[in-house]
Amino acid sequence: MQNFMTIRTDLAIEAREMVTKHVSHEVSGVDVVTSKDEDVLITRVNITNQAAEDALGKPIGKYITIEAQGLKYNDEDLHEKIAGFLAEELNGLIKINSAATVLVVGLGNRNITPDALGPKTIEKLVVTRHLKDMLLDDVKDRMRLVCAIEPGVLGITGMETAEIIQGIVTKIKPDIVIAIDALAAAASHRVNTTIQLANTGIHPGSGVDNKRFGLNQATLGVPVIAIGVPTVVHASTIAMDTIHALKEHASFARYFKSLENLSAGECQTIIRQVLPETLGNLMVTPKEIDQIITDISTVVAKGINQALHDKIDYENIHTCIKYI
Amino acid sequence: MQNFMTIRTDLAIEAREMVTKHVSHEVSGVDVVTSKDEDVLITRVNITNQAAEDALGKPIGKYITIEAQGLKYNDEDLHEKIAGFLAEELNGLIKINSAATVLVVGLGNRNITPDALGPKTIEKLVVTRHLKDMLLDDVKDRMRLVCAIEPGVLGITGMETAEIIQGIVTKIKPDIVIAIDALAAAASHRVNTTIQLANTGIHPGSGVDNKRFGLNQATLGVPVIAIGVPTVVHASTIAMDTIHALKEHASFARYFKSLENLSAGECQTIIRQVLPETLGNLMVTPKEIDQIITDISTVVAKGINQALHDKIDYENIHTCIKYI
Amino acid sequence: MQNFMTIRTDLAIEAREMVTKHVSHEVSGVDVVTSKDEDVLITRVNITNQAAEDALGKPIGKYITIEAQGLKYNDEDLHEKIAGFLAEELNGLIKINSAATVLVVGLGNRNITPDALGPKTIEKLVVTRHLKDMLLDDVKDRMRLVCAIEPGVLGITGMETAEIIQGIVTKIKPDIVIAIDALAAAASHRVNTTIQLANTGIHPGSGVDNKRFGLNQATLGVPVIAIGVPTVVHASTIAMDTIHALKEHASFARYFKSLENLSAGECQTIIRQVLPETLGNLMVTPKEIDQIITDISTVVAKGINQALHDKIDYENIHTCIKYI
Amino acid sequence: MQNFMTIRTDLAIEAREMVTKHVSHEVSGVDVVTSKDEDVLITRVNITNQAAEDALGKPIGKYITIEAQGLKYNDEDLHEKIAGFLAEELNGLIKINSAATVLVVGLGNRNITPDALGPKTIEKLVVTRHLKDMLLDDVKDRMRLVCAIEPGVLGITGMETAEIIQGIVTKIKPDIVIAIDALAAAASHRVNTTIQLANTGIHPGSGVDNKRFGLNQATLGVPVIAIGVPTVVHASTIAMDTIHALKEHASFARYFKSLENLSAGECQTIIRQVLPETLGNLMVTPKEIDQIITDISTVVAKGINQALHDKIDYENIHTCIKYI
Repeated sequence: MQNFMTIRTDLAIEAREMVTKHVSHEVSGVDVVTSKDEDVLITRVNITNQAAEDALGKPIGKYITIEAQGLKYNDEDLHEKIAGFLAEELNGLIKINSAATVLVVGLGNRNITPDALGPKTIEKLVVTRHLKDMLLDDVKDRMRLVCAIEPGVLGITGMETAEIIQGIVTKIKPDIVIAIDALAAAASHRVNTTIQLANTGIHPGSGVDNKRFGLNQATLGVPVIAIGVPTVVHASTIAMDTIHALKEHASFARYFKSLENLSAGECQTIIRQVLPETLGNLMVTPKEIDQIITDISTVVAKGINQALHDKIDYENIHTCIKYI
Repeated sequence: MQNFMTIRTDLAIEAREMVTKHVSHEVSGVDVVTSKDEDVLITRVNITNQAAEDALGKPIGKYITIEAQGLKYNDEDLHEKIAGFLAEELNGLIKINSAATVLVVGLGNRNITPDALGPKTIEKLVVTRHLKDMLLDDVKDRMRLVCAIEPGVLGITGMETAEIIQGIVTKIKPDIVIAIDALAAAASHRVNTTIQLANTGIHPGSGVDNKRFGLNQATLGVPVIAIGVPTVVHASTIAMDTIHALKEHASFARYFKSLENLSAGECQTIIRQVLPETLGNLMVTPKEIDQIITDISTVVAKGINQALHDKIDYENIHTCIKYI
Repeated sequence: MQNFMTIRTDLAIEAREMVTKHVSHEVSGVDVVTSKDEDVLITRVNITNQAAEDALGKPIGKYITIEAQGLKYNDEDLHEKIAGFLAEELNGLIKINSAATVLVVGLGNRNITPDALGPKTIEKLVVTRHLKDMLLDDVKDRMRLVCAIEPGVLGITGMETAEIIQGIVTKIKPDIVIAIDALAAAASHRVNTTIQLANTGIHPGSGVDNKRFGLNQATLGVPVIAIGVPTVVHASTIAMDTIHALKEHASFARYFKSLENLSAGECQTIIRQVLPETLGNLMVTPKEIDQIITDISTVVAKGINQALHDKIDYENIHTCIKYI
Repeated sequence: MQNFMTIRTDLAIEAREMVTKHVSHEVSGVDVVTSKDEDVLITRVNITNQAAEDALGKPIGKYITIEAQGLKYNDEDLHEKIAGFLAEELNGLIKINSAATVLVVGLGNRNITPDALGPKTIEKLVVTRHLKDMLLDDVKDRMRLVCAIEPGVLGITGMETAEIIQGIVTKIKPDIVIAIDALAAAASHRVNTTIQLANTGIHPGSGVDNKRFGLNQATLGVPVIAIGVPTVVHASTIAMDTIHALKEHASFARYFKSLENLSAGECQTIIRQVLPETLGNLMVTPKEIDQIITDISTVVAKGINQALHDKIDYENIHTCIKYI
């Protein structure tokens, strides 16, 4: 049973699928509620005890995925709708008053396209913290003080992202941190189609870049909401999926004696042969990834803007700031 | 025997490998000469008759590959050396006089990173055609008149690249065309490690974007040299490689009855399951692809600059143009 | 009288202002009609005879300027309105049937931000020419066949833009050419606030880059509509404006004996001192020029899309192409 | 005497020129030493007492300018030489041991080309702090622990740069901070030709963006070296220079009664007329600014890399890090 987790995933929904597939019953301590319309499926996974945390490899907490195949197409109306759902779910997760200070962190490397989701989202946020002394009185207690940072990546800064954010949090004292990150999916159909929110923050080993330190209540001292979008699958996932497809496809049974006995180690041997280590970290992305990252970062930024500035009419935010 | 070509490749060297693997002897009409040093392997494949053309699926002509694992790393000295080899091989292929007009075409879409090799190379060329009336007398008959164009891609221009280049060739009347293109490799270890030169031009169905029309002597009326670098493998190649690895790895024999009987159609079934068609054209690239394309386009541009401006000291080209 | 044209301008409206200021009456052969609302001023200048052409330094033809200070701000509603006006005026200028082929040319250098208007507009056009064999029957005779090219600039291509476009026109045989270009304004208040349409094409010496060849009916053999937006003023214009302000400001009269006698040559002496020639071509732009060029290129592209695809519902163009 | 400072400058050398021009003698408390070769002029200005600080409007401290017209041209040999001078002067200013931790801060907005000098320099630094546990023993005590951050700008982050850096400094505890910034010059001939080093840090009101808070020993608690390059002049400087040229050019004397009496207020009136306030902050830059910023950021990064990693052979830094 230990090898079904060989394909590591940043998505709680995928972790749960893998587990339930193998134990063939729902895991206790994992509550799942879904809602959907013709375009969008929302799944709320609540991990409520230690046993469930151990089984899924995800900390106790709430995980919400918003899935829509249309997220990766250039469909403005659908994107607007998804941004609305994101705002709603985000509002459900954050419990802060209307004048709270919020620090949004855009993780990732802007020079690597599929990892640039965080930095590109940050650029489109309506930041307001620096306006606090210039706000009209009737706006003042209704506008959250939003600030944002793109901390860069270890190889460029020489500093752990957690160190940078810890330093800034000590100085700025936000009530909550929202961290945006590009993730690796375990299945190619989730690439650029899924947004995950989690109230557990970001943990070591997650993200396209495999963070070494976490950003969460334990490391920062304030609640951390993580918003992640899988933008790549690792090439090794494609190879692994192929082996699984061979094993599971009934019509191939006649070719195999006992492929289900193929061990995790043997799978690794095959993958190493297909993908020599000298190649480094090969990623699988659609050709249109530049445009897709631009679009999805807009969706995420709109969702956050709506959620954080929900007490004032969204259409008027721009004007409102202009008058100040 | 018909299914070994299921994995289409733009590289003659890969086509030959696939064929010889299956017929287990050298194909007649295919001459192969290699030379190497500690870093670089150069293979010159000469397809000399129709039978060889049919067997390899590549037109009669000369194909040279310059292979170096170090091409994809940021190693200035090695890149300088590879540029020198490229210049030498290019000079061997082009038979034009020292005052000829050369049109260099940078194929591909600059907004899709791994397809931007051509456009990025064009920017770094030493173009000289517009200087012809301003050249010093002693330089005049030693300097080739180089011009360059980035024609864009069909989805952006609404015109076939071949139409655009035909129009320009009619007007400019170059003696030769050099076309630079990003290719898809059949094996992941060739991604960003190989430069192919061919005196056969570019044929329909090649390149990352699968060109619909060719750029070659037949369509343009002048010789066309193609310079191609594989910058991606298709995700389907990874899946296919995995199946091949399973079939070929001796230690897995015990799991299979007769996997070699797995047909091309059955392989397609598996790949479609792993990579649903809705995903579009998934590509596999290294994470560092932006930097790699910048570096390799510099190598290719330097090689072309050296080859075309070989009658004047390369170090002085810049100064020389400045004095004009 | 000959020195009032020292400040060269690409805008007919500015040429006319300079002339009328000096001759203090309307020039015969120049018809001017304006219309305006609270945000936008539209001026239609019709140069109808040779005398007017000589006086204004602009060929006989129609020149329309759409002026709005808000063009340079990020105001979506106003931008939508301006795009609508542009579509209307463009439709008034082009006399082509509903199935005509239109070639749109994006002039300028994409690597020099204020000169990148043309290239950036091209990217956002709805091109349709390559779809002609795939159109639904009821769309076929209502959809113009639009294609587009970014020819690059002389220093990068080694070819005159006119040569490239002549070659392509010969091959593609469009019914009309639309050329988009960034211009230099003669007054800083017009920078990024004005769109000029002209049915006279583009003439040598115009544009940020001072084209050496024209793109017009004489050089291409088909009508050419020019769409230009001033995105810079030359630094020398600021210096010249300062001298004019000194001359004209009544309250400074006491400092001058006879500044109106300051000759064009003396002005040049001052400007050379302020702006040594070694500085090259200094340009004046707002700090936000990157964002502004992104926004205005969107306005121009929307206007062209609406004008060219006016027989089909604009909102449905995307869907329509998707179904094809 | 108070209006000669109307043209504010970030360069101590310009401040000194303006002052000495007006008082027509050297200011006491200002030591000036220059050295030069055929390409480069180095001026070391030492402000040693409060009177000099007040006269020049620059804090007590050392200011070094490296001036070379060739800095703005694409001249690799000269750039290499300038980087060497920069390393030397930087080494003279910083008094830290060979295993010190250094935080380099790249100020400015990467989306506004002439303000992107800081962010673009950061990307090219050899950062080493994250390698400290992986260094070979014989390298360990010879390699400075360099880290780097691009804090963004107030309008994007909602946080003062000083707040962000204070937070990071508290966490990282560097021995020294080096801050890189794009400046506004008071004279157009200094644009992209001058690098200023100062051991006084950065003070409110300086830089292209007019920082509101300072980065200096007082605000950060550690020494701050500022490296600045003027990349723009404000358009108002061009207008002001024109008025000065008119006043000073002997041959124009006959036109003026008493232009020297033109007050600062009257100058402002003229400039407001030439440059209406609605235009926002117009900047003057060369057309080639994108390329120039790329080149100069490389020079600055090379200079810093050489200075900070001077105990190990510069050519081997890359290899050295690779072995780690």
